[in-house]
Amino acid sequence: MNISKIRERTLPLKNVAIRDHFWSHYIRLVREVVVPYQWEVLNDRVPEAEPSHAVRNFKIAAGEEQGEFGGMVFQDSDVAKWLEAVAYLLQTGPDRELEAAADEMIDIIAKAQHADGYLNTYFTLKEPEGRWTNLAECHELYCAGHMIEAAVAYYEATGKRKIIDVVCRFADYIDSVFGSEPGKLNGYDGHQEIELALVKLYRTTGIERYLRLSQYFLDQRGSRPHFYFREFKLRDGKVHFLQLDMAHDLKYSQSHRPVRQQDEAVGHAVRLVYMLSGMADVAAETGDASLLQACRSIWKSIVTKRMYITAGIGSMAYGESFTADYDLPSDTAYAETCASIGLIFFAHRMLQLEPSSEYASIMERALYNTVVSGMARDGKSFFYVNPLEVDPRLFGKNQIYDHVKPIRQEWFSCACCPPNIARLLASLGQYIYTVKGDTLYTHLYIGGHAKIDWEDGSFEIEQSGNYAWEGQVKLNIAATCSHAKTIALRIPDWCDGVKIEIDGVPLELEQQRIEHGYVTITRQWAAATEIRLLFDMPIKKMKGHPALRHTAGKIALQRGPFIYCLEEADNGEHLHLLAIPENGGLEAAYVPELLGGITVIRAEALRQVAEPCDDRAALYGNTLALYGDASSMNWREASCQATFIPYYAWANRGMGEMTVWVRERLL
Amino acid sequence: MNISKIRERTLPLKNVAIRDHFWSHYIRLVREVVVPYQWEVLNDRVPEAEPSHAVRNFKIAAGEEQGEFGGMVFQDSDVAKWLEAVAYLLQTGPDRELEAAADEMIDIIAKAQHADGYLNTYFTLKEPEGRWTNLAECHELYCAGHMIEAAVAYYEATGKRKIIDVVCRFADYIDSVFGSEPGKLNGYDGHQEIELALVKLYRTTGIERYLRLSQYFLDQRGSRPHFYFREFKLRDGKVHFLQLDMAHDLKYSQSHRPVRQQDEAVGHAVRLVYMLSGMADVAAETGDASLLQACRSIWKSIVTKRMYITAGIGSMAYGESFTADYDLPSDTAYAETCASIGLIFFAHRMLQLEPSSEYASIMERALYNTVVSGMARDGKSFFYVNPLEVDPRLFGKNQIYDHVKPIRQEWFSCACCPPNIARLLASLGQYIYTVKGDTLYTHLYIGGHAKIDWEDGSFEIEQSGNYAWEGQVKLNIAATCSHAKTIALRIPDWCDGVKIEIDGVPLELEQQRIEHGYVTITRQWAAATEIRLLFDMPIKKMKGHPALRHTAGKIALQRGPFIYCLEEADNGEHLHLLAIPENGGLEAAYVPELLGGITVIRAEALRQVAEPCDDRAALYGNTLALYGDASSMNWREASCQATFIPYYAWANRGMGEMTVWVRERLL
Repeated sequence: MNISKIRERTLPLKNVAIRDHFWSHYIRLVREVVVPYQWEVLNDRVPEAEPSHAVRNFKIAAGEEQGEFGGMVFQDSDVAKWLEAVAYLLQTGPDRELEAAADEMIDIIAKAQHADGYLNTYFTLKEPEGRWTNLAECHELYCAGHMIEAAVAYYEATGKRKIIDVVCRFADYIDSVFGSEPGKLNGYDGHQEIELALVKLYRTTGIERYLRLSQYFLDQRGSRPHFYFREFKLRDGKVHFLQLDMAHDLKYSQSHRPVRQQDEAVGHAVRLVYMLSGMADVAAETGDASLLQACRSIWKSIVTKRMYITAGIGSMAYGESFTADYDLPSDTAYAETCASIGLIFFAHRMLQLEPSSEYASIMERALYNTVVSGMARDGKSFFYVNPLEVDPRLFGKNQIYDHVKPIRQEWFSCACCPPNIARLLASLGQYIYTVKGDTLYTHLYIGGHAKIDWEDGSFEIEQSGNYAWEGQVKLNIAATCSHAKTIALRIPDWCDGVKIEIDGVPLELEQQRIEHGYVTITRQWAAATEIRLLFDMPIKKMKGHPALRHTAGKIALQRGPFIYCLEEADNGEHLHLLAIPENGGLEAAYVPELLGGITVIRAEALRQVAEPCDDRAALYGNTLALYGDASSMNWREASCQATFIPYYAWANRGMGEMTVWVRERLL
Repeated sequence: MNISKIRERTLPLKNVAIRDHFWSHYIRLVREVVVPYQWEVLNDRVPEAEPSHAVRNFKIAAGEEQGEFGGMVFQDSDVAKWLEAVAYLLQTGPDRELEAAADEMIDIIAKAQHADGYLNTYFTLKEPEGRWTNLAECHELYCAGHMIEAAVAYYEATGKRKIIDVVCRFADYIDSVFGSEPGKLNGYDGHQEIELALVKLYRTTGIERYLRLSQYFLDQRGSRPHFYFREFKLRDGKVHFLQLDMAHDLKYSQSHRPVRQQDEAVGHAVRLVYMLSGMADVAAETGDASLLQACRSIWKSIVTKRMYITAGIGSMAYGESFTADYDLPSDTAYAETCASIGLIFFAHRMLQLEPSSEYASIMERALYNTVVSGMARDGKSFFYVNPLEVDPRLFGKNQIYDHVKPIRQEWFSCACCPPNIARLLASLGQYIYTVKGDTLYTHLYIGGHAKIDWEDGSFEIEQSGNYAWEGQVKLNIAATCSHAKTIALRIPDWCDGVKIEIDGVPLELEQQRIEHGYVTITRQWAAATEIRLLFDMPIKKMKGHPALRHTAGKIALQRGPFIYCLEEADNGEHLHLLAIPENGGLEAAYVPELLGGITVIRAEALRQVAEPCDDRAALYGNTLALYGDASSMNWREASCQATFIPYYAWANRGMGEMTVWVRERLL
């Protein structure tokens, strides 16, 4: 195996240790709570959680237990995502117990593998004749992809070859089944994932066959005659998921046209961002300009027309999908946690291809809002769906909100989000820096230590400060390189001005060289250099594009990377009656005892109040009609204070109303 | 048969002839277009419509044709509703062709009846062993009820006994099957309808058994152990409608508790208002105070907490149901045309029990808005669903709008609404007046002639004027009664002042005696008296109750009985960018050439306009980000004129946005 090309673009996770004011808490939770708890759930040892069956399925397939397959068709991927998270944790710190559990699991996985390399407990146990007969629906290659990602991460963490040998045999077998040669299946998975995984496997093993197979899956996608129509006929119209028509709703799986001809964000949101990640990876390895161009077009479609202000994506529960340009309802939103995680994957890959702060800004927006919202402060409950407006009184009453939960759930029958949060946070160190040529890019301001190895020496960087709440960053750099290097520091999209000092000397505005949203500083770095950044962190009143129906007349508050929201706990019921005056005062205040320590925003506000003003008041008591004009309803505005909290922290104080968008009162 | 008691409360339809500025057009459409077209559809003779199968089912059951049952389980009711509409048309004017078609249909229906009296083509043809095994789902008594209503109306119209004999035999058979006696089924239909129909049959035939059977069905509803659970077990869990769980979702069919213990509007909206109509009927006949009290409580729940401003009811597509207090989303509304028709049925019955303008006002609101909105101006296409906000760009894109249609449809696979509109409009004369004791109540101001027979003489009333658009009413009364009588004239809920003249002499405000929302005038009426009414018809800015989230910060315009809306055809796209200033001018103008002649409202308005204002404009062209603050998006308000049209007239000029509620710009 060679040193993979990826080393030219991102830092090995091992080289980055996070010690951050905001993130350390969550990363510690992943290590101490989430991943151990997941292991118990996967082993069906948590009485109050629905049985996962995931480990047991592997044991049965390995011949170690008797029984039947349980869970979803993609249940194997839960084990893989857990293993991947474990691998990242091992890359950043030893843990004998976790490693022992992982090794034990890997032994079982290896035994569950068929002699020909095939590995999938659903088909092994439940449909042994059904292998590769329903790619549109049955997630076979998706599960393979997750196992490959886990294997690569585990090998990188431990150097142990067992699981990577398993997935190489599996990938070799897949390569023997799929392809354009006569006698091979020219299909591809309904749920993209293997594409990006195969590039990882290629980068770690150096085996080009895996890259070519990834490229093949992407090239084949959406070609005509359509593979899903043919396989549907061949299996006599057998359907796995009755609620959706995956074999024919081609946009759902982004197979409605060849990937290079796609320029709109459609279909299942997670599938799209996983596919785009794979496309960016293949483009990076092959220099395929048309693939990169499609990535750019769909990125633009997402972030300029189909994304919530929280970087949530997918505005519809049905199909967990994108809908139409500017259709972003707040209360029926889907905005799956996994989709925003996938958006981070995609953005991170685009940053490796063409560093530009637009990618990093969205990565940050997703991370500090929808992703961290996905997990409770205690790491024990999770959101799958991340709405921007909630009235818990309607749950169980109006079916359009059936997918929304007013409080985080302990586990899920389809448990994709919690392990996805775990593997993202366990590998967060990967997303902070990238290297391109002689430039080190700082995309995220997350405290901790990083080591960058150049050909002519190394950098040690210590990042510190209170970026998330105060916009303060300190970078202490110790360099041994013999040649000049450039450090590129992202200017956040919420920041209108930045103060920079290098070893106490201000870098004046006119001296600041800004490229694609990054301040670049090029020099021969000394043994010890200190860079201080102070980003202006005003409270911003954000408005939506005029075509956005659901934000018309409303504002959302943002401060630093955080989008804010109103909760009933602070503001009483009927949040829709509150309005923020155009020129009203806004004040940020750090409240250490609230929700683990957050900066709240206190706003001058007006509450609409209505009283009956006609004879009815006397007749019927002080009740208001359902509809009335000025002769029957007396409306006035009462001054009050509204308290906003960061969106990610909502629903940690019981059930209540929440809203991100609030009416603005123009003067 | 005796003269039914109903004659004490409402006028025979034969005694009322409508000649109205607004309604005559629609009633003519029903006679000349809707009912003849329906007959063609029911006979599968309209190539572009889906086959109805309805007449053919009866022919097959009658042994006149060979074949299989087609259509929904309640397909028979389409024939019944058509026959009922024909009967009302024959009550108000002869039509040999229609009567011949009806007689022909009745002959077939009679032949399709079993020897024991049973009549239902679905069970006769498709499930001969399944009779009365699935009352929760299969609409058997619902279809019976519609046939009874049709038979009563046809008998009243023609005096021909054939069809009323058919339904009496059927009702006698039903009475032999259902009841609390041992060996009888103690069930009731999932879809209420037979209850109100049996009271009609009782009133026409005088046979008290039918009243008792109706009462039995109401008394039995919701009792425990629950009938639907038992029959579900008995039929081994067989389900007819897979999408809904009718056997167990008891609120759906308002069988979750005994009817007298219900005080909230829940479940399928049409079922609820049909049930309430039957309850009011039985209460009227039996003096059952607890039944009447339940009617009042649920009425209050509907009109004070769960009704759209258009008198649409049912805010959720799933189950065509009520949801929760104050949950009235504009764009995902269901607001089925049939439900508002049923609300009129219910209101009309309450008016007979306890005349109060609150019932008549809602009746008027439903009639002039949701009901007439249900039919296109040419009588050839129909709305089932009546949303208050529409963006046609989202149809087929976001599934939460799948039930909404941006243009009226020619016919429906479940064709309940068009024949329901037909039978309501064909019998509209019934709803104008009621009589209680010596008082004649005028609930609706609809032009035409009416004859009221008292014991001591008669009244001939000629109503005229342009009430709908101008608030002018003239009543010319010719009386022969020997004793004093009271005329009670409803003051519309939208009217803050009325000018009344009797034979040219003003009835001054202090002389006006107002009881329950009616001006009452008691006198010994002369051979010729003219009453003139001029109702103030200001443009009203209506607001929603503070608990209504979806109307917060918005207004809706009302003038006279009409709720208004904005359409894209008059106002361009992005209606959400328009706001109406608090003190802006509003002007009503009759436009004879527009949509058959309507009064539009022209309003001073403000359109929010956003332009990019940062360096991006130069960098990326004149495009706006999806979200931005004042440093990137420059918002301003541009003065413009907004044109409102009456809600009922929307979607007659192709597809476009529509909204009833518009943002208000406070000063």
